Amino acid sequence: MIRSLCVIGVGLIGGSLAHSLRRVQYCQEIVGCGRNRQSLERALALGVIDRFETDPAAAVRGCDMVVLAVPMGAMRSVLKRIAPALAPDAVVTDVGSAKQDVIEALTEVVGEVPAWFVPGHPVAGTERSGVDASFATLFDERSVILTPVSHTDPVAVQRVHDMWESAGAYVTTMDMARHDAVLAATSHLPHVLAYGLVDTLARMSQSDDIFAFAAGGFRDFTRIASSDIEMWRDICLANREAIVSVLDHYLDDLHRLREAIHDGDAAWLQEVFGRAKAARDRRYSGGTE
Amino acid sequence: MIRSLCVIGVGLIGGSLAHSLRRVQYCQEIVGCGRNRQSLERALALGVIDRFETDPAAAVRGCDMVVLAVPMGAMRSVLKRIAPALAPDAVVTDVGSAKQDVIEALTEVVGEVPAWFVPGHPVAGTERSGVDASFATLFDERSVILTPVSHTDPVAVQRVHDMWESAGAYVTTMDMARHDAVLAATSHLPHVLAYGLVDTLARMSQSDDIFAFAAGGFRDFTRIASSDIEMWRDICLANREAIVSVLDHYLDDLHRLREAIHDGDAAWLQEVFGRAKAARDRRYSGGTE
Repeated sequence: MIRSLCVIGVGLIGGSLAHSLRRVQYCQEIVGCGRNRQSLERALALGVIDRFETDPAAAVRGCDMVVLAVPMGAMRSVLKRIAPALAPDAVVTDVGSAKQDVIEALTEVVGEVPAWFVPGHPVAGTERSGVDASFATLFDERSVILTPVSHTDPVAVQRVHDMWESAGAYVTTMDMARHDAVLAATSHLPHVLAYGLVDTLARMSQSDDIFAFAAGGFRDFTRIASSDIEMWRDICLANREAIVSVLDHYLDDLHRLREAIHDGDAAWLQEVFGRAKAARDRRYSGGTE
Repeated sequence: MIRSLCVIGVGLIGGSLAHSLRRVQYCQEIVGCGRNRQSLERALALGVIDRFETDPAAAVRGCDMVVLAVPMGAMRSVLKRIAPALAPDAVVTDVGSAKQDVIEALTEVVGEVPAWFVPGHPVAGTERSGVDASFATLFDERSVILTPVSHTDPVAVQRVHDMWESAGAYVTTMDMARHDAVLAATSHLPHVLAYGLVDTLARMSQSDDIFAFAAGGFRDFTRIASSDIEMWRDICLANREAIVSVLDHYLDDLHRLREAIHDGDAAWLQEVFGRAKAARDRRYSGGTE
Protein backbone atom coordinates (compact mmCIF):
# COMPACT_ATOMS: atom_id res chain seq x y z
CA MET A 1 0.00 0.00 0.00
CA ILE A 2 1.06 3.57 -0.67
CA ARG A 3 0.14 6.34 1.74
CA SER A 4 0.72 9.26 -0.55
CA LEU A 5 1.70 8.85 -4.20
CA CYS A 6 3.19 11.78 -6.08
CA VAL A 7 2.97 11.56 -9.88
CA ILE A 8 5.14 14.13 -11.60
CA GLY A 9 3.91 14.42 -15.17
CA VAL A 10 0.22 13.44 -15.26
CA GLY A 11 0.03 12.40 -18.93
CA LEU A 12 -0.71 9.08 -20.62
CA ILE A 13 1.65 7.04 -18.42
CA GLY A 14 1.40 8.95 -15.15
CA GLY A 15 -2.36 9.33 -15.49
CA SER A 16 -2.89 5.67 -16.36
CA LEU A 17 -0.81 4.56 -13.37
CA ALA A 18 -2.95 6.76 -11.10
CA HIS A 19 -6.14 5.37 -12.67
CA SER A 20 -5.04 1.76 -12.28
CA LEU A 21 -3.88 2.14 -8.66
CA ARG A 22 -7.17 3.84 -7.76
CA ARG A 23 -9.04 0.91 -9.30
CA VAL A 24 -7.50 -1.40 -6.67
CA GLN A 25 -7.44 1.25 -3.91
CA TYR A 26 -3.70 0.99 -3.57
CA CYS A 27 -3.10 4.65 -2.52
CA GLN A 28 -4.66 6.78 0.17
CA GLU A 29 -3.85 9.93 -1.76
CA ILE A 30 -2.55 10.84 -5.22
CA VAL A 31 -0.78 14.17 -5.71
CA GLY A 32 -0.24 15.38 -9.28
CA CYS A 33 2.50 17.71 -10.41
CA GLY A 34 3.35 19.27 -13.77
CA ARG A 35 4.21 22.45 -15.60
CA ASN A 36 0.77 22.96 -17.06
CA ARG A 37 -1.88 24.04 -14.54
CA GLN A 38 -4.72 23.54 -17.02
CA SER A 39 -3.77 19.92 -17.58
CA LEU A 40 -3.55 19.35 -13.81
CA GLU A 41 -7.00 20.86 -13.36
CA ARG A 42 -8.23 18.48 -16.03
CA ALA A 43 -6.63 15.53 -14.17
CA LEU A 44 -8.37 16.70 -10.99
CA ALA A 45 -11.73 16.99 -12.79
CA LEU A 46 -11.29 13.49 -14.22
CA GLY A 47 -10.67 12.15 -10.72
CA VAL A 48 -7.17 10.95 -11.64
CA ILE A 49 -5.53 12.92 -8.81
CA ASP A 50 -6.76 14.22 -5.44
CA ARG A 51 -4.82 17.49 -5.49
CA PHE A 52 -1.93 19.07 -7.35
CA GLU A 53 1.09 21.31 -7.02
CA THR A 54 3.02 22.99 -9.81
CA ASP A 55 6.24 23.05 -7.77
CA PRO A 56 7.87 19.57 -7.66
CA ALA A 57 9.47 20.24 -4.25
CA ALA A 58 6.08 21.07 -2.75
CA ALA A 59 4.46 18.10 -4.52
CA VAL A 60 6.77 15.42 -3.09
CA ARG A 61 6.61 16.71 0.48
CA GLY A 62 5.42 13.90 2.77
CA CYS A 63 4.91 11.41 -0.08
CA ASP A 64 6.20 7.85 0.37
CA MET A 65 6.21 7.07 -3.37
CA VAL A 66 7.24 9.43 -6.16
CA VAL A 67 6.86 8.49 -9.83
CA LEU A 68 8.66 10.62 -12.40
CA ALA A 69 6.61 10.41 -15.58
CA VAL A 70 8.10 13.40 -17.37
CA PRO A 71 9.87 13.40 -20.75
CA MET A 72 13.50 12.30 -20.31
CA GLY A 73 14.75 15.80 -21.12
CA ALA A 74 13.03 17.16 -18.00
CA MET A 75 14.55 14.53 -15.69
CA ARG A 76 17.59 16.51 -14.53
CA SER A 77 15.69 19.64 -13.55
CA VAL A 78 12.98 17.68 -11.74
CA LEU A 79 15.53 15.56 -9.83
CA LYS A 80 17.32 18.72 -8.74
CA ARG A 81 14.10 20.20 -7.40
CA ILE A 82 12.81 17.16 -5.54
CA ALA A 83 15.99 15.63 -4.06
CA PRO A 84 16.21 18.00 -1.06
CA ALA A 85 12.45 17.87 -0.37
CA LEU A 86 11.87 14.11 -0.21
CA ALA A 87 10.48 12.45 2.92
CA PRO A 88 12.96 10.13 4.72
CA ASP A 89 11.00 7.03 3.72
CA ALA A 90 10.33 8.14 0.12
CA VAL A 91 11.03 5.82 -2.78
CA VAL A 92 11.45 7.39 -6.22
CA THR A 93 11.06 5.63 -9.54
CA ASP A 94 10.79 6.78 -13.13
CA VAL A 95 9.19 5.51 -16.34
CA GLY A 96 11.88 6.50 -18.85
CA SER A 97 12.48 4.39 -21.92
CA ALA A 98 16.32 4.60 -21.63
CA LYS A 99 17.83 3.67 -18.29
CA GLN A 100 21.53 4.48 -18.53
CA ASP A 101 20.72 8.11 -19.18
CA VAL A 102 18.63 8.29 -16.00
CA ILE A 103 21.58 6.95 -14.03
CA GLU A 104 23.82 9.61 -15.59
CA ALA A 105 21.27 12.28 -14.71
CA LEU A 106 21.19 11.12 -11.08
CA THR A 107 24.96 11.08 -10.85
CA GLU A 108 25.13 14.61 -12.24
CA VAL A 109 22.40 16.04 -10.09
CA VAL A 110 22.57 14.10 -6.80
CA GLY A 111 26.27 13.18 -7.03
CA GLU A 112 25.56 9.45 -6.88
CA VAL A 113 22.78 6.98 -7.62
CA PRO A 114 20.79 7.09 -4.39
CA ALA A 115 19.65 3.83 -2.78
CA TRP A 116 16.06 5.14 -2.79
CA PHE A 117 15.90 5.47 -6.58
CA VAL A 118 14.58 2.50 -8.56
CA PRO A 119 14.96 2.96 -12.34
CA GLY A 120 11.87 1.55 -14.05
CA HIS A 121 10.17 1.34 -17.41
CA PRO A 122 6.60 0.26 -18.15
CA VAL A 123 6.72 -1.20 -21.68
CA ALA A 124 3.29 0.11 -22.61
CA GLY A 125 1.81 3.10 -24.31
CA THR A 126 -0.30 4.26 -27.18
CA GLU A 127 0.36 6.88 -29.83
CA ARG A 128 -1.79 9.32 -27.88
CA SER A 129 -0.58 11.54 -25.07
CA GLY A 130 -1.93 13.68 -22.26
CA VAL A 131 -4.17 12.89 -19.30
CA ASP A 132 -7.27 12.58 -21.50
CA ALA A 133 -5.64 9.61 -23.21
CA SER A 134 -4.95 7.81 -19.91
CA PHE A 135 -6.92 4.74 -18.83
CA ALA A 136 -6.89 2.21 -15.99
CA THR A 137 -6.06 -0.89 -18.04
CA LEU A 138 -3.00 0.42 -19.93
CA PHE A 139 -0.61 -1.75 -17.91
CA ASP A 140 -2.75 -4.88 -17.63
CA GLU A 141 -0.56 -7.85 -18.55
CA ARG A 142 2.17 -5.53 -19.84
CA SER A 143 5.81 -5.75 -18.85
CA VAL A 144 7.44 -3.35 -16.46
CA ILE A 145 11.23 -3.62 -16.37
CA LEU A 146 13.17 -2.46 -13.31
CA THR A 147 16.92 -1.91 -13.64
CA PRO A 148 18.25 -1.45 -10.08
CA VAL A 149 21.99 -0.89 -9.57
CA SER A 150 24.09 -2.89 -7.09
CA HIS A 151 23.39 -0.61 -4.13
CA THR A 152 19.72 0.10 -4.78
CA ASP A 153 17.77 -0.61 -1.59
CA PRO A 154 16.00 -3.99 -2.01
CA VAL A 155 13.08 -2.72 0.03
CA ALA A 156 12.67 0.17 -2.42
CA VAL A 157 12.78 -2.27 -5.35
CA GLN A 158 10.10 -4.39 -3.69
CA ARG A 159 7.84 -1.39 -3.14
CA VAL A 160 8.09 -0.32 -6.78
CA HIS A 161 7.59 -3.93 -7.85
CA ASP A 162 4.42 -4.20 -5.75
CA MET A 163 3.08 -0.91 -7.08
CA TRP A 164 3.36 -2.00 -10.71
CA GLU A 165 1.96 -5.42 -9.98
CA SER A 166 -1.03 -3.72 -8.37
CA ALA A 167 -1.37 -1.69 -11.55
CA GLY A 168 -1.78 -4.97 -13.44
CA ALA A 169 1.72 -5.41 -14.89
CA TYR A 170 4.25 -8.23 -14.95
CA VAL A 171 7.43 -6.97 -13.34
CA THR A 172 10.91 -8.07 -14.45
CA THR A 173 14.36 -7.01 -13.34
CA MET A 174 17.08 -6.56 -15.95
CA ASP A 175 20.57 -5.17 -16.38
CA MET A 176 20.21 -1.63 -17.66
CA ALA A 177 22.51 -1.98 -20.67
CA ARG A 178 20.52 -4.99 -21.81
CA HIS A 179 17.29 -3.05 -21.27
CA ASP A 180 18.55 -0.17 -23.39
CA ALA A 181 19.64 -2.47 -26.23
CA VAL A 182 16.36 -4.41 -26.25
CA LEU A 183 14.22 -1.27 -26.19
CA ALA A 184 16.33 0.37 -28.89
CA ALA A 185 15.47 -2.59 -31.12
CA THR A 186 11.76 -3.06 -30.40
CA SER A 187 10.60 0.41 -29.61
CA HIS A 188 13.03 3.21 -30.38
CA LEU A 189 14.09 2.01 -33.85
CA PRO A 190 10.51 1.37 -35.06
CA HIS A 191 9.53 4.89 -33.96
CA VAL A 192 12.48 6.38 -35.86
CA LEU A 193 11.59 4.33 -38.95
CA ALA A 194 7.91 5.28 -38.83
CA TYR A 195 8.53 9.00 -38.29
CA GLY A 196 11.14 8.87 -41.06
CA LEU A 197 8.86 7.10 -43.53
CA VAL A 198 5.88 9.41 -43.03
CA ASP A 199 8.16 12.42 -43.39
CA THR A 200 9.81 11.05 -46.56
CA LEU A 201 6.43 10.38 -48.14
CA ALA A 202 4.88 13.65 -46.99
CA ARG A 203 7.65 15.57 -48.76
CA MET A 204 7.19 13.72 -52.07
CA SER A 205 5.37 15.39 -54.95
CA GLN A 206 2.56 12.80 -55.00
CA SER A 207 2.06 12.98 -51.23
CA ASP A 208 -1.67 13.72 -51.51
CA ASP A 209 -2.26 10.57 -53.55
CA ILE A 210 0.02 8.60 -51.29
CA PHE A 211 -1.97 9.30 -48.17
CA ALA A 212 -5.33 9.16 -49.96
CA PHE A 213 -4.79 5.59 -51.19
CA ALA A 214 -3.02 4.18 -48.16
CA ALA A 215 -4.65 1.02 -46.83
CA GLY A 216 -4.93 -0.41 -43.34
CA GLY A 217 -1.40 -1.82 -43.42
CA PHE A 218 0.03 1.66 -43.82
CA ARG A 219 -2.14 3.02 -41.04
CA ASP A 220 -0.92 0.33 -38.63
CA PHE A 221 2.66 0.70 -39.79
CA THR A 222 2.71 4.43 -39.20
CA ARG A 223 0.51 4.66 -36.11
CA ILE A 224 3.54 5.24 -33.86
CA ALA A 225 4.45 8.29 -35.98
CA SER A 226 1.57 10.05 -34.21
CA SER A 227 3.39 9.71 -30.87
CA ASP A 228 4.53 12.64 -28.75
CA ILE A 229 7.39 14.46 -30.52
CA GLU A 230 9.32 15.77 -27.52
CA MET A 231 9.18 12.46 -25.72
CA TRP A 232 10.65 10.65 -28.72
CA ARG A 233 13.23 13.32 -29.45
CA ASP A 234 14.40 12.93 -25.84
CA ILE A 235 14.48 9.14 -26.05
CA CYS A 236 16.61 9.30 -29.22
CA LEU A 237 19.03 11.61 -27.47
CA ALA A 238 19.07 9.56 -24.25
CA ASN A 239 19.65 6.18 -25.88
CA ARG A 240 21.55 7.24 -28.95
CA GLU A 241 24.36 4.70 -28.82
CA ALA A 242 22.06 1.69 -28.64
CA ILE A 243 19.74 3.13 -31.30
CA VAL A 244 22.57 3.92 -33.72
CA SER A 245 23.97 0.43 -33.18
CA VAL A 246 20.75 -1.39 -34.12
CA LEU A 247 19.94 1.15 -36.85
CA ASP A 248 23.33 0.44 -38.47
CA HIS A 249 22.55 -3.28 -38.51
CA TYR A 250 19.22 -2.51 -40.11
CA LEU A 251 20.67 -0.10 -42.68
CA ASP A 252 23.16 -2.76 -43.79
CA ASP A 253 20.37 -5.29 -44.22
CA LEU A 254 18.15 -2.78 -45.97
CA HIS A 255 20.86 -1.92 -48.49
CA ARG A 256 21.22 -5.63 -49.22
CA LEU A 257 17.44 -5.91 -49.68
CA ARG A 258 17.50 -2.89 -51.98
CA GLU A 259 20.08 -4.65 -54.17
CA ALA A 260 17.96 -7.80 -54.22
CA ILE A 261 14.90 -5.84 -55.39
CA HIS A 262 16.95 -3.90 -57.94
CA ASP A 263 18.51 -7.10 -59.30
CA GLY A 264 15.28 -9.11 -59.23
CA ASP A 265 16.85 -11.61 -56.81
CA ALA A 266 13.73 -13.66 -56.04
CA ALA A 267 15.57 -16.21 -53.89
CA TRP A 268 17.00 -13.59 -51.54
CA LEU A 269 13.65 -11.82 -51.15
CA GLN A 270 11.92 -15.10 -50.42
CA GLU A 271 14.58 -16.03 -47.86
CA VAL A 272 14.40 -12.74 -45.96
CA PHE A 273 10.60 -12.48 -46.09
CA GLY A 274 10.29 -16.13 -45.08
CA ARG A 275 12.59 -15.79 -42.06
CA ALA A 276 10.74 -12.64 -40.98
CA LYS A 277 7.28 -14.15 -41.30
CA ALA A 278 8.37 -17.28 -39.43
CA ALA A 279 9.91 -15.22 -36.61
CA ARG A 280 6.85 -13.05 -36.23
CA ASP A 281 4.28 -15.83 -36.55
CA ARG A 282 6.19 -17.92 -33.97
CA ARG A 283 5.94 -15.06 -31.52
CA TYR A 284 2.38 -13.93 -32.13
CA SER A 285 0.59 -16.97 -33.46
CA GLY A 286 -2.64 -17.69 -31.69
CA GLY A 287 -2.75 -14.23 -30.22
CA THR A 288 -5.61 -11.92 -31.06
CA GLU A 289 -4.30 -9.06 -33.05
CA MET B 1 -25.22 -8.11 -62.72
CA ILE B 2 -22.88 -10.93 -63.55
CA ARG B 3 -24.19 -14.16 -65.03
CA SER B 4 -21.21 -16.34 -64.28
CA LEU B 5 -18.18 -15.08 -62.34
CA CYS B 6 -14.90 -16.99 -62.51
CA VAL B 7 -12.46 -16.31 -59.67
CA ILE B 8 -9.00 -17.69 -60.39
CA GLY B 9 -7.18 -17.87 -57.08
CA VAL B 10 -9.74 -18.23 -54.28
CA GLY B 11 -7.66 -16.82 -51.42
CA LEU B 12 -8.08 -13.77 -49.21
CA ILE B 13 -8.86 -11.36 -52.07
CA GLY B 14 -10.66 -13.69 -54.49
CA GLY B 15 -12.64 -15.32 -51.69
CA SER B 16 -13.62 -12.00 -50.14
CA LEU B 17 -14.81 -10.68 -53.51
CA ALA B 18 -16.98 -13.79 -53.94
CA HIS B 19 -18.35 -13.40 -50.39
CA SER B 20 -19.19 -9.73 -50.88
CA LEU B 21 -20.85 -10.21 -54.28
CA ARG B 22 -22.94 -13.07 -52.88
CA ARG B 23 -24.05 -10.79 -50.05
CA VAL B 24 -25.74 -8.50 -52.61
CA GLN B 25 -26.70 -11.33 -54.98
CA TYR B 26 -24.69 -9.82 -57.80
CA CYS B 27 -23.80 -13.14 -59.52
CA GLN B 28 -25.93 -16.04 -60.64
CA GLU B 29 -22.97 -18.39 -60.35
CA ILE B 30 -19.42 -18.27 -58.98
CA VAL B 31 -16.80 -20.66 -60.37
CA GLY B 32 -13.57 -21.07 -58.46
CA CYS B 33 -10.23 -22.10 -59.92
CA GLY B 34 -6.83 -22.77 -58.42
CA ARG B 35 -3.90 -25.14 -58.24
CA ASN B 36 -4.84 -26.61 -54.90
CA ARG B 37 -7.89 -28.89 -54.96
CA GLN B 38 -8.09 -29.08 -51.16
CA SER B 39 -8.35 -25.32 -50.88
CA LEU B 40 -11.06 -25.26 -53.59
CA GLU B 41 -13.01 -27.91 -51.72
CA ARG B 42 -12.72 -25.77 -48.63
CA ALA B 43 -14.06 -22.76 -50.61
CA LEU B 44 -16.97 -24.91 -51.78
CA ALA B 45 -17.69 -26.09 -48.24
CA LEU B 46 -17.62 -22.48 -46.98
CA GLY B 47 -20.16 -21.54 -49.66
CA VAL B 48 -17.77 -19.07 -51.27
CA ILE B 49 -18.05 -20.71 -54.70
CA ASP B 50 -20.72 -22.84 -56.41
CA ARG B 51 -18.32 -25.18 -58.23
CA PHE B 52 -14.68 -25.36 -59.20
CA GLU B 53 -12.24 -26.39 -61.89
CA THR B 54 -8.50 -26.90 -61.55
CA ASP B 55 -7.89 -26.10 -65.22
CA PRO B 56 -8.16 -22.33 -65.89
CA ALA B 57 -9.31 -22.87 -69.49
CA ALA B 58 -12.19 -25.05 -68.29
CA ALA B 59 -13.00 -22.62 -65.48
CA VAL B 60 -13.48 -19.54 -67.66
CA ARG B 61 -15.64 -21.30 -70.25
CA GLY B 62 -18.95 -19.44 -70.59
CA CYS B 63 -18.15 -16.91 -67.86
CA ASP B 64 -18.90 -13.23 -68.52
CA MET B 65 -16.56 -11.97 -65.79
CA VAL B 66 -13.14 -13.39 -64.93
CA VAL B 67 -11.14 -12.12 -61.95
CA LEU B 68 -7.47 -13.08 -61.74
CA ALA B 69 -6.60 -13.13 -58.05
CA VAL B 70 -3.38 -15.14 -58.31
CA PRO B 71 0.10 -14.03 -57.16
CA MET B 72 1.67 -11.82 -59.82
CA GLY B 73 4.25 -14.48 -60.67
CA ALA B 74 1.45 -16.78 -61.88
CA MET B 75 -0.14 -14.17 -64.14
CA ARG B 76 1.64 -15.08 -67.37
CA SER B 77 0.87 -18.79 -67.23
CA VAL B 78 -2.78 -18.18 -66.30
CA LEU B 79 -3.26 -15.60 -69.07
CA LYS B 80 -1.80 -18.06 -71.60
CA ARG B 81 -4.25 -20.74 -70.51
CA ILE B 82 -7.40 -18.66 -70.44
CA ALA B 83 -6.98 -16.35 -73.46
CA PRO B 84 -8.13 -18.90 -76.09
CA ALA B 85 -10.99 -20.18 -73.93
CA LEU B 86 -12.77 -16.92 -73.05
CA ALA B 87 -16.41 -16.35 -74.01
CA PRO B 88 -16.91 -13.60 -76.63
CA ASP B 89 -18.54 -11.29 -74.09
CA ALA B 90 -16.06 -12.01 -71.28
CA VAL B 91 -14.41 -9.20 -69.37
CA VAL B 92 -11.19 -10.02 -67.50
CA THR B 93 -9.70 -8.04 -64.63
CA ASP B 94 -6.98 -8.67 -62.11
CA VAL B 95 -6.16 -7.60 -58.55
CA GLY B 96 -2.38 -7.23 -58.82
CA SER B 97 -0.59 -4.61 -56.77
CA ALA B 98 1.67 -3.51 -59.67
CA LYS B 99 -0.06 -2.60 -62.93
CA GLN B 100 2.71 -2.01 -65.48
CA ASP B 101 3.91 -5.55 -65.02
CA VAL B 102 0.45 -6.91 -65.81
CA ILE B 103 0.45 -4.92 -69.03
CA GLU B 104 3.86 -6.37 -69.93
CA ALA B 105 2.58 -9.85 -69.19
CA LEU B 106 -0.41 -9.33 -71.48
CA THR B 107 1.78 -8.00 -74.27
CA GLU B 108 4.08 -11.00 -73.97
CA VAL B 109 1.35 -13.60 -73.79
CA VAL B 110 -1.50 -12.21 -75.89
CA GLY B 111 0.65 -10.04 -78.17
CA GLU B 112 -1.20 -6.86 -77.18
CA VAL B 113 -3.28 -5.44 -74.37
CA PRO B 114 -6.75 -6.71 -75.26
CA ALA B 115 -9.71 -4.34 -75.08
CA TRP B 116 -11.50 -6.81 -72.78
CA PHE B 117 -8.83 -6.64 -70.06
CA VAL B 118 -9.29 -4.05 -67.29
CA PRO B 119 -6.25 -3.80 -64.98
CA GLY B 120 -7.47 -3.34 -61.42
CA HIS B 121 -6.25 -3.25 -57.85
CA PRO B 122 -8.34 -3.40 -54.68
CA VAL B 123 -6.30 -1.50 -52.06
CA ALA B 124 -7.33 -3.76 -49.22
CA GLY B 125 -6.02 -6.81 -47.46
CA THR B 126 -4.90 -8.20 -44.15
CA GLU B 127 -1.73 -10.01 -43.15
CA ARG B 128 -3.58 -13.31 -43.41
CA SER B 129 -4.04 -15.34 -46.56
CA GLY B 130 -6.11 -18.21 -47.92
CA VAL B 131 -9.85 -18.68 -48.29
CA ASP B 132 -10.34 -19.18 -44.55
CA ALA B 133 -9.16 -15.61 -44.03
CA SER B 134 -11.67 -14.19 -46.54
CA PHE B 135 -14.72 -12.20 -45.45
CA ALA B 136 -17.56 -10.26 -47.06
CA THR B 137 -16.70 -6.80 -45.72
CA LEU B 138 -13.03 -6.67 -46.75
CA PHE B 139 -13.71 -4.11 -49.50
CA ASP B 140 -16.33 -2.01 -47.71
CA GLU B 141 -15.34 1.64 -48.13
CA ARG B 142 -11.93 0.64 -49.49
CA SER B 143 -10.43 1.98 -52.71
CA VAL B 144 -10.26 -0.02 -55.88
CA ILE B 145 -8.03 1.55 -58.53
CA LEU B 146 -8.57 0.72 -62.20
CA THR B 147 -5.81 1.57 -64.70
CA PRO B 148 -7.30 1.09 -68.19
CA VAL B 149 -5.12 1.83 -71.23
CA SER B 150 -6.26 4.03 -74.12
CA HIS B 151 -7.97 1.27 -76.07
CA THR B 152 -9.57 -0.59 -73.15
CA ASP B 153 -13.27 -1.07 -73.90
CA PRO B 154 -15.23 1.51 -71.84
CA VAL B 155 -18.04 -1.00 -71.44
CA ALA B 156 -15.59 -3.45 -69.89
CA VAL B 157 -14.31 -0.74 -67.55
CA GLN B 158 -17.87 0.05 -66.52
CA ARG B 159 -18.64 -3.59 -65.78
CA VAL B 160 -15.57 -3.98 -63.56
CA HIS B 161 -16.38 -0.67 -61.90
CA ASP B 162 -19.92 -1.82 -61.12
CA MET B 163 -18.69 -5.16 -59.78
CA TRP B 164 -16.34 -3.52 -57.27
CA GLU B 165 -18.93 -0.95 -56.28
CA SER B 166 -21.33 -3.80 -55.57
CA ALA B 167 -18.60 -5.34 -53.41
CA GLY B 168 -18.68 -2.19 -51.29
CA ALA B 169 -15.63 -0.36 -52.65
CA TYR B 170 -14.99 3.16 -53.95
CA VAL B 171 -13.69 2.87 -57.50
CA THR B 172 -11.12 5.28 -58.97
CA THR B 173 -9.36 5.35 -62.32
CA MET B 174 -5.69 6.25 -62.46
CA ASP B 175 -2.74 6.26 -64.83
CA MET B 176 -0.84 3.03 -64.24
CA ALA B 177 2.59 4.61 -63.67
CA ARG B 178 1.09 6.85 -61.02
CA HIS B 179 -0.63 3.84 -59.44
CA ASP B 180 2.63 1.93 -59.28
CA ALA B 181 4.50 4.86 -57.71
CA VAL B 182 1.79 5.50 -55.11
CA LEU B 183 1.51 1.84 -54.15
CA ALA B 184 5.29 1.46 -53.98
CA ALA B 185 5.28 4.22 -51.37
CA THR B 186 2.31 3.27 -49.21
CA SER B 187 2.24 -0.47 -49.48
CA HIS B 188 5.27 -2.11 -51.06
CA LEU B 189 7.93 -0.12 -49.21
CA PRO B 190 6.32 -0.59 -45.76
CA HIS B 191 6.17 -4.35 -46.38
CA VAL B 192 9.86 -4.43 -47.34
CA LEU B 193 10.74 -2.36 -44.25
CA ALA B 194 8.70 -4.55 -41.91
CA TYR B 195 10.01 -7.85 -43.27
CA GLY B 196 13.52 -6.41 -43.15
CA LEU B 197 13.20 -5.20 -39.57
CA VAL B 198 11.82 -8.44 -38.18
CA ASP B 199 14.55 -10.38 -39.97
CA THR B 200 17.30 -8.06 -38.70
CA LEU B 201 16.07 -8.38 -35.12
CA ALA B 202 15.44 -12.13 -35.33
CA ARG B 203 19.08 -12.64 -36.31
CA MET B 204 20.46 -10.60 -33.40
CA SER B 205 21.91 -12.35 -30.37
CA GLN B 206 19.30 -10.92 -27.97
CA SER B 207 16.41 -11.83 -30.26
CA ASP B 208 14.54 -13.78 -27.56
CA ASP B 209 14.51 -10.75 -25.27
CA ILE B 210 13.68 -8.49 -28.15
CA PHE B 211 10.48 -10.29 -29.03
CA ALA B 212 9.61 -11.05 -25.39
CA PHE B 213 9.54 -7.39 -24.40
CA ALA B 214 8.04 -5.94 -27.54
CA ALA B 215 4.99 -3.78 -26.86
CA GLY B 216 1.88 -3.08 -28.89
CA GLY B 217 3.63 -0.54 -31.10
CA PHE B 218 6.02 -3.20 -32.36
CA ARG B 219 3.21 -5.64 -32.97
CA ASP B 220 1.33 -3.09 -35.10
CA PHE B 221 4.50 -1.99 -36.87
CA THR B 222 5.44 -5.52 -37.87
CA ARG B 223 1.95 -6.95 -38.53
CA ILE B 224 2.49 -6.78 -42.31
CA ALA B 225 5.61 -8.97 -41.93
CA SER B 226 3.18 -11.86 -41.42
CA SER B 227 1.86 -11.42 -44.97
CA ASP B 228 2.10 -14.04 -47.68
CA ILE B 229 5.75 -14.45 -48.73
CA GLU B 230 5.32 -15.44 -52.38
CA MET B 231 2.83 -12.69 -53.04
CA TRP B 232 5.21 -10.06 -51.69
CA ARG B 233 8.24 -11.52 -53.40
CA ASP B 234 6.31 -11.28 -56.67
CA ILE B 235 5.19 -7.71 -56.00
CA CYS B 236 8.79 -6.66 -55.30
CA LEU B 237 9.88 -8.21 -58.58
CA ALA B 238 6.95 -6.78 -60.54
CA ASN B 239 7.26 -3.20 -59.29
CA ARG B 240 10.97 -3.07 -58.64
CA GLU B 241 11.75 0.26 -60.31
CA ALA B 242 9.14 2.20 -58.37
CA ILE B 243 10.05 0.44 -55.12
CA VAL B 244 13.78 1.06 -55.51
CA SER B 245 13.06 4.71 -56.33
CA VAL B 246 11.09 5.40 -53.15
CA LEU B 247 13.38 3.19 -51.06
CA ASP B 248 16.37 5.26 -52.20
CA HIS B 249 14.62 8.45 -51.06
CA TYR B 250 13.92 6.79 -47.74
CA LEU B 251 17.46 5.46 -47.32
CA ASP B 252 18.88 8.95 -47.89
CA ASP B 253 16.55 10.39 -45.26
CA LEU B 254 17.27 7.55 -42.85
CA HIS B 255 21.01 8.09 -43.12
CA ARG B 256 20.48 11.76 -42.30
CA LEU B 257 18.32 10.76 -39.31
CA ARG B 258 21.02 8.33 -38.20
CA GLU B 259 23.55 11.19 -38.21
CA ALA B 260 21.17 13.37 -36.22
CA ILE B 261 20.76 10.67 -33.55
CA HIS B 262 24.49 9.98 -33.51
CA ASP B 263 25.31 13.69 -33.14
CA GLY B 264 22.52 14.40 -30.65
CA ASP B 265 20.95 16.90 -33.07
CA ALA B 266 17.75 17.59 -31.12
CA ALA B 267 16.51 20.27 -33.52
CA TRP B 268 16.67 17.97 -36.55
CA LEU B 269 14.91 15.13 -34.75
CA GLN B 270 12.18 17.46 -33.56
CA GLU B 271 11.74 18.85 -37.07
CA VAL B 272 11.44 15.44 -38.76
CA PHE B 273 9.25 13.91 -36.05
CA GLY B 274 7.08 17.03 -35.98
CA ARG B 275 6.53 17.06 -39.75
CA ALA B 276 5.71 13.34 -39.69
CA LYS B 277 3.25 13.57 -36.81
CA ALA B 278 1.53 16.58 -38.40
CA ALA B 279 1.24 14.77 -41.76
CA ARG B 280 -0.18 11.62 -40.20
CA ASP B 281 -2.52 13.36 -37.76
CA ARG B 282 -3.86 15.58 -40.58
CA ARG B 283 -4.76 12.47 -42.54
CA TYR B 284 -6.14 10.27 -39.79
CA SER B 285 -7.38 12.68 -37.14
CA GLY B 286 -10.88 11.95 -35.97
CA GLY B 287 -10.82 8.47 -37.45
CA THR B 288 -11.19 5.49 -35.21
CA GLU B 289 -7.97 3.55 -35.23
